[in-house]
Amino acid sequence: MSLGWTGILASHCKLVQSQSGRSFCRWISSAVQRGSNYAELNQADVAAFTDILGSGGVVQDETALDAANEDWMGKYKGNSKLLLRPKTTQQTSDILKHCNDRRLAVVPQGGNSGLVGGSVPLFDEVIVSFASMKRILSLDKVNGALTCQAGSTLQELDDHAREHGFLMPLDLGAKGSCQAGGFVSTNAGGLRFLRYGSLHGSVLGLEAVLADGTILNSMQTLPKDNTGYDLKQLFIGAEGTLGLITAVAIRCPFASTSTNLAYLACESYEAVTEVYRRARRELGEILSAFEFLDRQALELTKQHLENVKDPLPSTNTQFYLVVETSGSNAEHDMAKLEGFLTDAMEEGLIADGTIAQDTGQAQGIWGLREGISVALRHAGATYKYDLSLPPPALYTMVEVMRQRLSHHDVRVVGYGHLGDSNLHLNISSADWKEEVRKEIEPFVYEWTAEHGGSISAEHGLGQMKPECIRYSKSPEMVGMMHRVKDLFDPNHILNPYKLLPQRTQ
Amino acid sequence: MSLGWTGILASHCKLVQSQSGRSFCRWISSAVQRGSNYAELNQADVAAFTDILGSGGVVQDETALDAANEDWMGKYKGNSKLLLRPKTTQQTSDILKHCNDRRLAVVPQGGNSGLVGGSVPLFDEVIVSFASMKRILSLDKVNGALTCQAGSTLQELDDHAREHGFLMPLDLGAKGSCQAGGFVSTNAGGLRFLRYGSLHGSVLGLEAVLADGTILNSMQTLPKDNTGYDLKQLFIGAEGTLGLITAVAIRCPFASTSTNLAYLACESYEAVTEVYRRARRELGEILSAFEFLDRQALELTKQHLENVKDPLPSTNTQFYLVVETSGSNAEHDMAKLEGFLTDAMEEGLIADGTIAQDTGQAQGIWGLREGISVALRHAGATYKYDLSLPPPALYTMVEVMRQRLSHHDVRVVGYGHLGDSNLHLNISSADWKEEVRKEIEPFVYEWTAEHGGSISAEHGLGQMKPECIRYSKSPEMVGMMHRVKDLFDPNHILNPYKLLPQRTQ
Repeated sequence: MSLGWTGILASHCKLVQSQSGRSFCRWISSAVQRGSNYAELNQADVAAFTDILGSGGVVQDETALDAANEDWMGKYKGNSKLLLRPKTTQQTSDILKHCNDRRLAVVPQGGNSGLVGGSVPLFDEVIVSFASMKRILSLDKVNGALTCQAGSTLQELDDHAREHGFLMPLDLGAKGSCQAGGFVSTNAGGLRFLRYGSLHGSVLGLEAVLADGTILNSMQTLPKDNTGYDLKQLFIGAEGTLGLITAVAIRCPFASTSTNLAYLACESYEAVTEVYRRARRELGEILSAFEFLDRQALELTKQHLENVKDPLPSTNTQFYLVVETSGSNAEHDMAKLEGFLTDAMEEGLIADGTIAQDTGQAQGIWGLREGISVALRHAGATYKYDLSLPPPALYTMVEVMRQRLSHHDVRVVGYGHLGDSNLHLNISSADWKEEVRKEIEPFVYEWTAEHGGSISAEHGLGQMKPECIRYSKSPEMVGMMHRVKDLFDPNHILNPYKLLPQRTQ
Repeated sequence: MSLGWTGILASHCKLVQSQSGRSFCRWISSAVQRGSNYAELNQADVAAFTDILGSGGVVQDETALDAANEDWMGKYKGNSKLLLRPKTTQQTSDILKHCNDRRLAVVPQGGNSGLVGGSVPLFDEVIVSFASMKRILSLDKVNGALTCQAGSTLQELDDHAREHGFLMPLDLGAKGSCQAGGFVSTNAGGLRFLRYGSLHGSVLGLEAVLADGTILNSMQTLPKDNTGYDLKQLFIGAEGTLGLITAVAIRCPFASTSTNLAYLACESYEAVTEVYRRARRELGEILSAFEFLDRQALELTKQHLENVKDPLPSTNTQFYLVVETSGSNAEHDMAKLEGFLTDAMEEGLIADGTIAQDTGQAQGIWGLREGISVALRHAGATYKYDLSLPPPALYTMVEVMRQRLSHHDVRVVGYGHLGDSNLHLNISSADWKEEVRKEIEPFVYEWTAEHGGSISAEHGLGQMKPECIRYSKSPEMVGMMHRVKDLFDPNHILNPYKLLPQRTQ
């Protein structure tokens, strides 16, 4: 399983064994060494944290630490000796003030469901978990503004919003575990992005604690507020490196009363993009998801997941689409969807298709789409890339990679959020091989940059690829990011070694 | 006409006469004095700018300078001796580098259609106009990403987008003059905010020039890009105080093929909010505007604008609503709208209503709604406030103010973007009276702050109310904004005296 370190760092990488005993590839760059400016935890620190949190909030138990040191994929593992669980913003502030004064490095941890190792330590960073800050604070019944503490899970928030006729503006496979502070810090995308847009538009307010303990409270719940710089935007996607998010205000749209799901087969990528273009026009305001998978993704998933059923078993096309509509009138929505599908089939853009007749069939289709990443894990090692590419280039990337790796025994799999120009490119192999990785990287990043794309669409950079930022951002932009980091966290105690590349002297 | 200086500064204000000869109130705070750190323009500077721009881009003509020194309302007037018109980003960079080295203060100017004096100088700042940078650079026909230079007007951009089946995600009365750099710098809201949300979600990429000439290029055209801090967000709503925006990438939604407009009469504000709540649920995804005006706004507009026709002349209710739907199927949209209206009328929520039967009738209704601010100017002096308030408190503000000012000969008028919790509170009087202003301010800001609102929903702070930021942002937030300003513009040459309050020692 690849961690996708870039070519820049490849020469420093080595393979290590997981403490959990499961064989996996873990790449530690010898270029990344524990910062010599950081203090080591001592008993006086533990006593100070116990004063702040009480003994229940200070965790030194090995089993709990083992779980918090490792990410859910078993890819990244740190060596923290202390896990703290604040219950309030003030406690979080007191913790950071102590850490800043003492130069103790800190890693914030939400649901630990990220894909780039952003929420686990590399070395002995103190872990600050938000698991004990999960209160939902308010929900405005008229405009849908929801406020909550950072540790509330997406599932809990969505359930609460739905009780009042709203829904959360984002949805993820990890919704049962991912937390508000985490999904805002990673600027999570997911399945509702096409309809409800980016968190930069949906997040109305934030409360964050800076490294020195300063509490920045902008828990605004109204959609418009033009009074000064919108500082909260900086924390969205900052991966916990500028401050620790302690509370979130987010705008929930009204939940649609009618949902339809279609699964379609297309012969060519040209047909896929034309179907997408027409869906945007003809389904218009009711289109809520436009996902795609290729034949390789379908076959791999059928092979490795027993529960997955092929919705169109008699077809053998190269592309499959999952198209969802959500609206306020079931009859209107179905009329639009059927009209759109009839036209597209008559014109030969769609080879075959089916509309889910009940919730079970819809869950089956979503199970196939969401099962791809699970199937990839069953299939062996995966070199995973989360790319944003302009529509014409998006699948060319998969074909170029397939051609490039044709002499290796690998499967190149493409799927993702086509409506958001977001490709999940996965190269699946029985075993992990360094020579394959070297043929992929840095080529995959260079090709993406050349075609105007982003080397991380929604996963972020974390500890996996901070050096790769240079493929998507200019030296001036990266330089300014370093200066923003210095301003917000002068001692660099917050989530070190992540998001930003090491500084060139 | 009031400039709405806050109580904080009121004691420093004095009345002056416009150079245009028209009597108006201009309030200069003696607390705001020309910064002693700024150099005065000399002939060597003019020669240097001529080297950069050629003589055509360097304007010293008095008529042109007069126009650029004064805002469109005639409220604010500076005394700049130089107007520069760069044609390229590099020229803009060269200009700023010179200004920064020389400590020449700069004011960026777009369409000069703002409402808070953000785009005109206070003293002798050099004006940098973007009128010569108005090229539309690209439009992606699949995903609607549009890129343009900063000087393109909203009308030009919308016309271009519509030629290809898209539309701009914002609409303003000033669209014929306001420019991309300006509407992004002011984080403009307007009439499509309800449907397409904030520019923080719609702006995909920016190019900005920092005070020292550094060009920050993040002209991303894809909706997802999680590579490092989203620095472009800082420039959205920064009113040109952190950098000069030279190019913009923005996501254009598909234009709807069907639009309907209803004008409704309601007896009470409770009925108004209930109609809004139901419109969000029943019209759902096709609701595209929900505006309101009160009887006082209607009467004032009928009185002062000859072209305005009352769409419901036989009604005499306190509230009127403008409800717009936009969708992809005219039949479906009309069925939804009629169903919604029938229910609301049967339940007594709506006293009367009409649906525009053609474009002319629709324009007539929009003309009434958009004519209110023009009518207010005809009516005499206006004390104008742009507030964001939670729905239950929104109209209470108007009633409280009406009661508070009942012993004065004024008309308290309330209208605005109800769907965005955005109230335009206007107090109209034949003449401007300081004692009236003192009864309004700072009360209006204190009341708004106490009720969880924002003292500037969409207009910004500009030179009108930088001190008022403290009603909506905590000292910690304002302190951090000052530090961000120092980081981006250490010599404070960019649009001084605006957005941020004077620093307390």
